[in-house]
Amino acid sequence: MKEKPEILLIGTGAIGSFYCGKLHQAGARISAVCRSDYDIVKNRGIQVKSIIGDFNYMPEQVVKKASDYSGRPDYIVVATKVLPEINVPDMIHERVYPGTAIVMLQNGINIEEPVAAAFPDNELISGLAFICVSRTEPGQINHQDYGRLVIGRYPSGISDSVSLFADMLNRSGVTCIIEEDIIAARWKKLIWNAPFNPISVLGGGANTIEMMESEPTLHLARKVMEEVVLLAERTGHPIPENVIQKNLDDTAVMTPYKTSMLLDYEGKRSMEVEAILGNTVRLAEKHNVPIPHIQSLYGLLSLLNKKNLGT
Amino acid sequence: MKEKPEILLIGTGAIGSFYCGKLHQAGARISAVCRSDYDIVKNRGIQVKSIIGDFNYMPEQVVKKASDYSGRPDYIVVATKVLPEINVPDMIHERVYPGTAIVMLQNGINIEEPVAAAFPDNELISGLAFICVSRTEPGQINHQDYGRLVIGRYPSGISDSVSLFADMLNRSGVTCIIEEDIIAARWKKLIWNAPFNPISVLGGGANTIEMMESEPTLHLARKVMEEVVLLAERTGHPIPENVIQKNLDDTAVMTPYKTSMLLDYEGKRSMEVEAILGNTVRLAEKHNVPIPHIQSLYGLLSLLNKKNLGT
Repeated sequence: MKEKPEILLIGTGAIGSFYCGKLHQAGARISAVCRSDYDIVKNRGIQVKSIIGDFNYMPEQVVKKASDYSGRPDYIVVATKVLPEINVPDMIHERVYPGTAIVMLQNGINIEEPVAAAFPDNELISGLAFICVSRTEPGQINHQDYGRLVIGRYPSGISDSVSLFADMLNRSGVTCIIEEDIIAARWKKLIWNAPFNPISVLGGGANTIEMMESEPTLHLARKVMEEVVLLAERTGHPIPENVIQKNLDDTAVMTPYKTSMLLDYEGKRSMEVEAILGNTVRLAEKHNVPIPHIQSLYGLLSLLNKKNLGT
Repeated sequence: MKEKPEILLIGTGAIGSFYCGKLHQAGARISAVCRSDYDIVKNRGIQVKSIIGDFNYMPEQVVKKASDYSGRPDYIVVATKVLPEINVPDMIHERVYPGTAIVMLQNGINIEEPVAAAFPDNELISGLAFICVSRTEPGQINHQDYGRLVIGRYPSGISDSVSLFADMLNRSGVTCIIEEDIIAARWKKLIWNAPFNPISVLGGGANTIEMMESEPTLHLARKVMEEVVLLAERTGHPIPENVIQKNLDDTAVMTPYKTSMLLDYEGKRSMEVEAILGNTVRLAEKHNVPIPHIQSLYGLLSLLNKKNLGT
């Protein structure tokens, strides 16, 4: 593995721009594939305002699509939203070489499968960001709180590529933790995301405290969490029961805030309905696990998403 | 029973104003308790535009509260919405005499219990309206389609009061059907109301066709219907299974329309969350019947209702 690995970033949203900026600080050579931000990033690079120190960086190459990139990446960092209309294998396949590791910094469950199937001989690294960061405008990132990244080889294990990626981030001041069972880590994150993201939207734009204060709503949130725990266990990734109470306790003392899904809804952007709920429902059907509360959220949110986008 | 019974109407919304207007045509003596419509109804009476013939009528007494009414009613027709903040026994108790029959023309399940408990010696008649009718402004009613009323003695059986009430309506051109098991009739109506009213609101203002066209949403609607059928059966009012398919088939061919709950939501008025969902959830808990999909709708709609009312 090279000392200064080449990294191709797909998607200059908040998550990708932030972590690749920190990798840049640690010596990695970053290039970026942008769509709507292309002109601004090409001219001015990326500005990061961050609680751990502001910085700017200029990617070596800024391109509109992966095939315009002329290097041979050690890592391709995929940091787009997970939406049915975004086909990751199509976007990256021309720059996936033998030895290229694909890093998915994205939300949801079971999102790795199509990428693993398309590139069976490449290493796949799955990552979960625990961070408050937003793109305030094209090329402008605001990192407000937290920052921990959890990564692991998919479907399990560790590797030199995983270790190097984590080392660089840790060196740059970001906590990056390696999980040998990254799928279990995804389930643990889903315990919070599966109830609170959808309920915040379906409940009319409710913040965390409003969701916790309504008794029938809290009941629903708990049931959704129980279904996530059940499904994780039935698919071979058991999670301790007390995680539910811990999630609820933590949420009760958080400063009330709007979920990322609610921000997407209010901005009339696509919500990650399939990554968070649809994939969960399909996995449950495959394993014959009843998850009626999650299925209810899915039935409602898929309709609301359509209505919101006017499609 | 008198030839020209005295009827005190509580609530001059669309349903009450329409059916009492038809009872007036059949010779009944109508008085009305109004709140917001008081001045207009007092001065101009009630105007009904109807597909079966326009008409106007003037109640004998128009009052602001039941205790201002000076008669002794044969029937008290309760036609308010069913909301936690509306206490029916409190509103009517001063004019409930021995022999007064209380007629509840209202939506929901298990809504009769508090009234039956408050007036154990009075006859209670429960009624379900299958009608498209709306109050376009105070004192103005627009009857657009259908019109059938289903009534029965609560909790079951028939009586002279029920028969006279039905006869008057039938004489006036409205189809009024007597059901010996009116609770079963309520369950049958809930099969449609429990899924489609909440989903239309939670789905972002969806009409009937939009709800039917989204596969995960239709799945949810069907599951909610199955839970209603299950709960009806377990509480002693079995409904034939094929009612679900019939409801779905009928809905698929309806002219797309907005549910009454959606109209309430859009008008920022209280939705009948407790009458439709809350009472169902509590009954299910009491009888230990699992209804997770209905519980999910309840958890969401109770939060959304609060947010919508700004409470």
